[in-house]
This record gives sequence, structure tokens and C-alpha cells, in this order.
Amino acid sequence: MSEARGSEKKAPMREVLAQAAFRLFLERGFERTTVDDIVALAGVGRRSFFRYFPSKEDAVFPDHERCLAETTEFLAAVDDSDPVGAVCDAARIVLRMYAANPEFSVQRYRLTREVPGLRTYELSVVRRYEQTLAGHLRGRFGEGRDGELRAEVIAASVVAAHNNGLRLWLRSGGAGDPEAAVDHALALVREVWGRPAVPTPATPFPVSGGGDGKGEVIVMVARKGTPMWRVVQQIEAAVGEN
Amino acid sequence: MSEARGSEKKAPMREVLAQAAFRLFLERGFERTTVDDIVALAGVGRRSFFRYFPSKEDAVFPDHERCLAETTEFLAAVDDSDPVGAVCDAARIVLRMYAANPEFSVQRYRLTREVPGLRTYELSVVRRYEQTLAGHLRGRFGEGRDGELRAEVIAASVVAAHNNGLRLWLRSGGAGDPEAAVDHALALVREVWGRPAVPTPATPFPVSGGGDGKGEVIVMVARKGTPMWRVVQQIEAAVGEN
Repeated sequence: MSEARGSEKKAPMREVLAQAAFRLFLERGFERTTVDDIVALAGVGRRSFFRYFPSKEDAVFPDHERCLAETTEFLAAVDDSDPVGAVCDAARIVLRMYAANPEFSVQRYRLTREVPGLRTYELSVVRRYEQTLAGHLRGRFGEGRDGELRAEVIAASVVAAHNNGLRLWLRSGGAGDPEAAVDHALALVREVWGRPAVPTPATPFPVSGGGDGKGEVIVMVARKGTPMWRVVQQIEAAVGEN
Repeated sequence: MSEARGSEKKAPMREVLAQAAFRLFLERGFERTTVDDIVALAGVGRRSFFRYFPSKEDAVFPDHERCLAETTEFLAAVDDSDPVGAVCDAARIVLRMYAANPEFSVQRYRLTREVPGLRTYELSVVRRYEQTLAGHLRGRFGEGRDGELRAEVIAASVVAAHNNGLRLWLRSGGAGDPEAAVDHALALVREVWGRPAVPTPATPFPVSGGGDGKGEVIVMVARKGTPMWRVVQQIEAAVGEN
């Protein structure tokens, strides 16, 4: 009981500090604001700040640790049927964190673009999300060389797609719902990576998807103008094969 | 003539500084080495260091600026026939920079893994390569919303694939030729993104590739067990369409 109340108390103080920090960053600039300024505004001691944030940069992104933990938890619990879909859903958890507070997200986006140190900090946070997604995919694709490769490339694709949709929304000033833009972007990734493909033998081109022979779809690629009999022959060979 | 000799002189001094810096970083650790230590070992004044490197971190990656410039130049001159292939080739320029000096590259890789500040610095360099590749693709795909999205996702894929192959080589201690691993990794990206696809109407699944209607290949995706007549009907519709 007392423990629960203890953790209830913690959250507001963290927020008070983050809000004080952010207000000063906007007013005076990030570089010119010291931790002493922040704690003075928040009305607490210097040590309190470092109890919640390892550095000034962390106070600009107060929710990423929690969000990273949530993403990791989500992926640990998700079923195995659709690994690419699962990491796309994990990316949506991050989006919801931004969407929950449009004004703050947009102001932070502008601040981050102006302060190189914050941009670098953000890159390292993005990298941690990417590694979390890649770790999940690696566990599903297997630790073999190509499993690792596909995991890393797909994780990078998902993060890039998510950030593309998110950035559109941030640039627009946080108007409307960012989910549509991110869903659209993630759909592209799922379309390309989401379905394991079985290579058909002797197609005019190699087939996409890096199939492992266990997929349930056939992908046929042919140059326009390939005679129909040839296309049919190849599909028949592929369908008949299993 | 004198100008050419001037720039010939510059290169060695830069290298002398970078080598002195790197030797001290390995011996004493990155954090414990000061710029004063570096210039003392190199036998030059403090201002010389900052003439060549904006920061201590930059001395660990002395070739990236040149390599970024080379990559940008290459992409500006490349023809338009195969944008995804072109950015893959641009990534190979970066690889060759690492491969030109295996011992240095491997030592730096180990150092970078140990020093958080260097990892962050490296992330920002990687991001600049990614933006260079994305900028090229954006120019080819058009500035529209989906052109930008595809450009960013493909650039991220290429960088992730390149880094996967490069990392394999670095982890192996720089043995052998890293080109094979990187070629293998980039082939996966090209396979998936390299060919613009024309969506066929009414296929059982949407078609991969985000086609713009100008591609020269057809991609057909069908679930295994789809009746042949249905598959043929759909391909005929697609082939006949143009």
C-alpha cells in the first residue's frame, strides 16, 4: 500500500521537473539553461533532478524510457503469427506517446531541430527502438546470418516508415490524427516484407521475399510482354511443386 | 601549382593528428585523452588540431567527411536508370573506406563500442549517409508524399543492410573481403525494392512494390491453392491492360 503511494508520488515530481526544464529550454534556449535553473524553477534541490534524469537531454524526452519498456513488454507477449505486423504495432505504441500530447510533441520537434545535441540524443533513442524491434524479429527469424540481416533491415524500414508518418504530422503542427499517416507508411513496409514468399523455379526473374520454403503464397515476377504460355507454365510448376 | 602542393601538405598533418589521437585513445581511453595530449604527441599547437577536426570525436572518424562528399558526388553523376542500384553502389563507397584500412577499422569498431559518446557520434554520421541516399531517391521518385516515404524507407534499408555486412566483417576482426557480405546484404534490399512493380487488378493480395504504373514488370501474388484459371485470368487482365 505504502509502496503504491510512493510510486504515485514519484510521477508528478518527474513531470514538474520535465515541465520546468522544457519551459526554460523554450524561453532561453537549451544551451543557456542549466540544471540549477531548472531545479530553481521547480522548487527542488539539484539532486532531485538527477534522481529522475541522467542528463539535461533526458528531460526533453521524459517518456521514452517508459515507452521503450512498454514496447519491449508488448513484443514479449505478442504471438508469433505475424512478426512484421507485431513490430509495426510496437511502432504504433511510440506514435501514441507522441499523439497523447500534440503541443508538447510539436514544440519538442522544433526545439530538437535547433539543438544539435538534442538531435544526436534523439538518434540514440531511435536506435534503441530499432534494436528492440530487430531483437524481436531476430528471435522469430532465427539467429542465422540471413535471419539477422532480415531482422535488421525490416526493423530499420519500420522505424523509417514510422518516422516519416510522424514527421508529416509534427511538421503540420500536430493537426489531426497522426495514425493515418503512420498506418499508410507502415502498410508499405508490410506489403513488401510482411509475407514470406516461395521462389518459383525458372521464373524470368528471381522472386522477392527471401522465402524459406514454408510460406503460403506464391510470388511471380515477369517482364511485361512475356508470353502467357510461359507464365502459366511457370506458375503451374510452382503450384504443382508442393 | 603552389595550391596543389599546399593541399598535398595538408593531408599528412591531418593524418598525423588522427594517428596520434587514435594511439592515445587506445592507450589511455577516449575520455582520458585531451586535445592537449594529442597535439603534444603530434608535435603541433592546439589550434592546428581544431583546424582539422571540430572535436575529439571527429579525429576518430577522420575519413567520413571526405567519404560523404565522395558519395554525394557519385550520386550527382550517376544515371537515372536504377536508383536503388545507385544508392547501393554509393553504400559500397563507404564500405571501401573501411576496407582500405582493416586494422584501423577494427580497432575503431572496438573503441566505438566502449565509448557511448563515440557511438552517438557514429549514429549521427550514419544518419548523414542515410539522408544523402534518401535525398537521391527522393529526386528520382518525386517529392510527392509516397516518393518521400519510399525514399526514406529504402535509404534506411540500404544503410541497415550495409551495416549488417560491415559489422560481420568487423566482428570477424577484419579477416577476408567485406564486399561479399555487403553484396549479399544489399542484394536482399535490391530484390525487394529494386524493381518497380505494376499492381495487377483484382489479385487475391495487393501487389508489392508500390508501383506508379510505369514499371516494366508484373508482380503477381497468390495464395497457394488458388485455382489456376483464376490466376491466369488475373495475369491476363494485368498484361492486357497496357
